[in-house]
Amino acid sequence: MGGDVGPDVTLAASESFLRAHPQAELLLVGLEEVVSPAAMRMPRATAVVASEVVSMDDSVEIALRKKRDSSMRVAITQVRPDPQTKVAAADACVSAGNTGALMAVSRYVLKTLPGIDRPAIATTLPHSQGGFTTMLDLGANVDCLPEHILQFALMGSALVGGLFGKDNPTVGLLNIGEELIKGSETVKHAGELLRQCAEQGGINFYGNVEGNDIFKGTTDVVVCDGFVGNVALKTIEGLASMLAGVVKQEFTRGLYSKMAALVALPVLNSFKKRVDPRTYNGASLLGLRGLVFKSHGSADAYAFEQAMHRAYSAVSNGLLDRVRQRIDAGAHFLSTSTASEAVVPITKT
Amino acid sequence: MGGDVGPDVTLAASESFLRAHPQAELLLVGLEEVVSPAAMRMPRATAVVASEVVSMDDSVEIALRKKRDSSMRVAITQVRPDPQTKVAAADACVSAGNTGALMAVSRYVLKTLPGIDRPAIATTLPHSQGGFTTMLDLGANVDCLPEHILQFALMGSALVGGLFGKDNPTVGLLNIGEELIKGSETVKHAGELLRQCAEQGGINFYGNVEGNDIFKGTTDVVVCDGFVGNVALKTIEGLASMLAGVVKQEFTRGLYSKMAALVALPVLNSFKKRVDPRTYNGASLLGLRGLVFKSHGSADAYAFEQAMHRAYSAVSNGLLDRVRQRIDAGAHFLSTSTASEAVVPITKT
Repeated sequence: MGGDVGPDVTLAASESFLRAHPQAELLLVGLEEVVSPAAMRMPRATAVVASEVVSMDDSVEIALRKKRDSSMRVAITQVRPDPQTKVAAADACVSAGNTGALMAVSRYVLKTLPGIDRPAIATTLPHSQGGFTTMLDLGANVDCLPEHILQFALMGSALVGGLFGKDNPTVGLLNIGEELIKGSETVKHAGELLRQCAEQGGINFYGNVEGNDIFKGTTDVVVCDGFVGNVALKTIEGLASMLAGVVKQEFTRGLYSKMAALVALPVLNSFKKRVDPRTYNGASLLGLRGLVFKSHGSADAYAFEQAMHRAYSAVSNGLLDRVRQRIDAGAHFLSTSTASEAVVPITKT
Repeated sequence: MGGDVGPDVTLAASESFLRAHPQAELLLVGLEEVVSPAAMRMPRATAVVASEVVSMDDSVEIALRKKRDSSMRVAITQVRPDPQTKVAAADACVSAGNTGALMAVSRYVLKTLPGIDRPAIATTLPHSQGGFTTMLDLGANVDCLPEHILQFALMGSALVGGLFGKDNPTVGLLNIGEELIKGSETVKHAGELLRQCAEQGGINFYGNVEGNDIFKGTTDVVVCDGFVGNVALKTIEGLASMLAGVVKQEFTRGLYSKMAALVALPVLNSFKKRVDPRTYNGASLLGLRGLVFKSHGSADAYAFEQAMHRAYSAVSNGLLDRVRQRIDAGAHFLSTSTASEAVVPITKT
């Protein structure tokens, strides 16, 4: 039901997804009048009915406490193992709904994995070497402790394994310089912790990276505080959108430009395909006892389908087990006693 | 002497700058064999000789303590008023040297203005409405207090006046959402302080903005902690550089693409001109008792000249007085007693 457009996008994506994966089965969660007819016409699709919908403007509070039978909550509940049988109805949940609500409800319904204080949001961005940089956290967590950044590093390493089958991905710590002495107190301590964990084999730590390294592809994973990650991601979106607008303006300004656009169209399309943000749609909510993927709210059917493919890859590659194993490997550095001594922001009295 | 290329760039830019401004006079600061012949052949140029040069790799320590007769230090000294006459040899200093060294030496030689704890680095970025967003701080200060962010807001407002003659620019606080409750503790407190200062007329505060607002042109000024600003700026540079690379690859891949590039060249050039980062070269070091501008180290002559034009505009529009006035207007909220109560990061013991 989610996203700026709703079922027109998600159902069209679902049909295409089912065609692409002959083994896949879908649970379509939503209002009865929407999902029942849709499930009738799709092979391997089952309707799961919910009586209400979390809107894009609903507060976390409303999503969590008032709308207990929302399609979002019912969808997330599908990936929670049954207490008796230990089996869940679905392997992964994909939603284009309100991010804050999705995170809060996921956390409430699924709970975090042992060793994880705060779930994170991770996404993948294309880099200039033709691969992808996985970046987290993207806004779920502000005022992070160094231990949280280590959790992000462990979960991000697992995600690269889960999405791309790469087992020992490199991790960079987003900072304002390569030198160890650079950065805020929290980031410097996070760097120490990442180095210690790497010495024990928990992660493959590269060291500090800077903002431009995200697009250079210096490391497979880039970790940062959710505030910094959110600002960086939205800045990227803003610049990309401005540049796309300027290209369009320039190629439609007058007759010659329009003719040039026609001639250059195959090249422009090939360019567009390589940097199309729709291709990279689908952020992962990590650190929960179940797999949840978040599509951009403005996704069209093509973009939403990519988020579904991403979820499918993650399930096929055993992402949840990979996350558990990584956290076990770093468990020694994630103890609460360590965290409690660390950097704590003191608020004004 | 500074920058990746050195005098070949800065002297070519100087000649072009002098042609553009028939009233301007230049002091060319550097090694004698470089600046003396250059000053001979340029009108209204005077050589100021220094015996050594701060290299791009020199540490702040070396720039500050060892190279006391560096061209960087001598150039900055030109904008320091003589203790007796109160007159400085130059109105502004422009350098393409090492940023860390430039900031440290500027701070040592010039000192900060009363009411300013930490000088900031500000730059201007083009936005989709055809104007500019002025953003600070860009890396000089990490672990900022809310009071520092207010100082950035006051100085940034003065800079927009100094560069573009706009007297009541709007200020946005870079955050991860528009709502007051969003963000880190420091940012939330900074928001309160900015609102209080705006009520007294010290600034024109818009409220929270997000990363994409930088390119939407939502506000004239965007303020943030230097860590966040540095990451955002370098991310922008990284994405721009990757996109430029992909465009180039696509337009040179095979015969048809090369032909299309030829046809599209006027349009591509017009696009390039609008988003060319060289045009926006020249960051301001704010909060010092003198005007210092920092060119990108990789600047070519065209880019370095833009930084010089920027410095010229700032002097013509009385930037230094504008900064002093803004700080006076916000003085009540900048008192040290307020600052000492604020958010302080506690380091691990």
